Amino acid sequence: MTQAALDVVGIGNAIVDVIAKADDAFLAANGIEKGAMTLIDTARAEELYGRMGPGIEMSGGSAANTMAGIASLGGKGAYIGKVRDDQLGTVFRHDISAIGVRFETPASNSGAPTARCLILVTPDAQRSMNTYLGACVELGPEDIDAALIQSAQVTYMEGYLFDPPRAKEAFRKAADLAHAAGRKVSLTLSDSFCVGRYRDEFADLVDRRIDILFGNEHEVKSLYQVDDFDAAVAAVRGRCEIAVLTRSEKGSVVVTRDAVQAIPAEPVSKLVDTTGAGDLFAAGFLHGYTTGRDLATCARIGAIAAAEVISHIGARPDASLAELVRARLG
Amino acid sequence: MTQAALDVVGIGNAIVDVIAKADDAFLAANGIEKGAMTLIDTARAEELYGRMGPGIEMSGGSAANTMAGIASLGGKGAYIGKVRDDQLGTVFRHDISAIGVRFETPASNSGAPTARCLILVTPDAQRSMNTYLGACVELGPEDIDAALIQSAQVTYMEGYLFDPPRAKEAFRKAADLAHAAGRKVSLTLSDSFCVGRYRDEFADLVDRRIDILFGNEHEVKSLYQVDDFDAAVAAVRGRCEIAVLTRSEKGSVVVTRDAVQAIPAEPVSKLVDTTGAGDLFAAGFLHGYTTGRDLATCARIGAIAAAEVISHIGARPDASLAELVRARLG
Repeated sequence: MTQAALDVVGIGNAIVDVIAKADDAFLAANGIEKGAMTLIDTARAEELYGRMGPGIEMSGGSAANTMAGIASLGGKGAYIGKVRDDQLGTVFRHDISAIGVRFETPASNSGAPTARCLILVTPDAQRSMNTYLGACVELGPEDIDAALIQSAQVTYMEGYLFDPPRAKEAFRKAADLAHAAGRKVSLTLSDSFCVGRYRDEFADLVDRRIDILFGNEHEVKSLYQVDDFDAAVAAVRGRCEIAVLTRSEKGSVVVTRDAVQAIPAEPVSKLVDTTGAGDLFAAGFLHGYTTGRDLATCARIGAIAAAEVISHIGARPDASLAELVRARLG
Repeated sequence: MTQAALDVVGIGNAIVDVIAKADDAFLAANGIEKGAMTLIDTARAEELYGRMGPGIEMSGGSAANTMAGIASLGGKGAYIGKVRDDQLGTVFRHDISAIGVRFETPASNSGAPTARCLILVTPDAQRSMNTYLGACVELGPEDIDAALIQSAQVTYMEGYLFDPPRAKEAFRKAADLAHAAGRKVSLTLSDSFCVGRYRDEFADLVDRRIDILFGNEHEVKSLYQVDDFDAAVAAVRGRCEIAVLTRSEKGSVVVTRDAVQAIPAEPVSKLVDTTGAGDLFAAGFLHGYTTGRDLATCARIGAIAAAEVISHIGARPDASLAELVRARLG
């Protein structure tokens, strides 16, 4: 195995977030599942956008947020995802490139516009996401750059990739390329509703293709259809090299064949918007992993990155995570 | 004179802000005039966007920010400005409509895209603005809805309207319509460089067409080419019904033929981004004016609105200004 030129390559749905404040009554009146990621079509996107308040547009997308986090931590990363050649696609490309992530997937020049996610943030800092997939449906195996995958220590993918029709083929192609090159493959389960949609495929994937799995408590319980956290830990243990289960303010648990380690959450002065918490936890963990840290430290860096992103509006870091980690870990 | 259906109609350049953090070295390396609004062409916009960091997109535009402020204060307002029928134009239209401002100017369907302003915010909270006027150059007298102007107590316009070629005609048409209907006309000087470009026209406008003038200390000194603040007060006094001179943390001074009143600034817990300070001061003042408050209270409401907008990133209110004013003024 040659020295890896990149730490992580992320593959995901390339999305621009449209973030607005809302109250619980608005969610109820508009039939929005609180805390979930719901897929919406064009008509629903227009209807919901017409009803929601003034927004802020920021580049998002789960794996893209993770890659932005890795760059902010000082890591070397690349991203694969599909935008359209429109204004929001230009914004997405600018933002991820400007933070230092390689992004060379060609934009589509016909079909649906760049994807957007209408995110309603309630006063309790919870986010409810409504995703119009747009150009993401064009992502396919032809977008997987073999040399890029082979050059990265870890290929990281989001479970949300199972929603567009051909992205899961891209996902499997990338996993096979990575393994053939002696690299690691990592997956985030993304969302418990997403796990509900693809439970059998995800369980099979974890057994056969995933080395490092990320999921929150609800997602892993849903994956193995168990009711309590300890049962989820027992169910996932041994199915992949490392499983990292996140539990919000209860911290995280790192599960390997040999050990189960619990790592506390970082203190947060003010919880503003939980969008991106899981994405940034994964960024911190993978940055630790690709720079040779022990697993407890990986989880600690994940917690530091997650704590930063939930202290402000938006799903990407607002401060240098490298400096933050230096200050916290010394 | 009939009862006014609207408090204020604002006319301005309809712009989407692209806000990024930068340091003074970046401004120097890229030849950006700190604290100013500089007009840029397509090539410069692409060059600068390519160099700046990840951004946040938010609807902006000076008079549009003022109208958003008036709506947030509970006032009734409308806006006239020109976007293109593109994604950023849709964002602009959504945001100003969603906060409760009537915006019915048709979008252009050919020519330049919706305007954007690349705003670099330095660690001292100062903003440096680089404006690509785009579709704003299409605004002309045909966009002035006579019935709308006649229905508003105050027609408010930004000095920046003198930059696109035909907007000043729209400006003069609106002023004449307002006066013929017995309404008031208000102008903000916008920026001292803008005053430098149109000094004679602005001075003539103030003498002949403006009832309520807004300008900061630097702008009014530039308008009358005087060196100190007292000379600026003396120079503007009597040239229009009310002149409001803002002085950042030193508060504001309201100048009428009969009196000169100084009103202190509101305390700001954390200064984050000064973008929109002048726009929101004007919103607060005009809201007070159109709801029958005395001039000192108008300036106090202006100070409260300005203090809110400089405490966070972005040029539009992040909290209900109506609630804030109730809490402060009782």
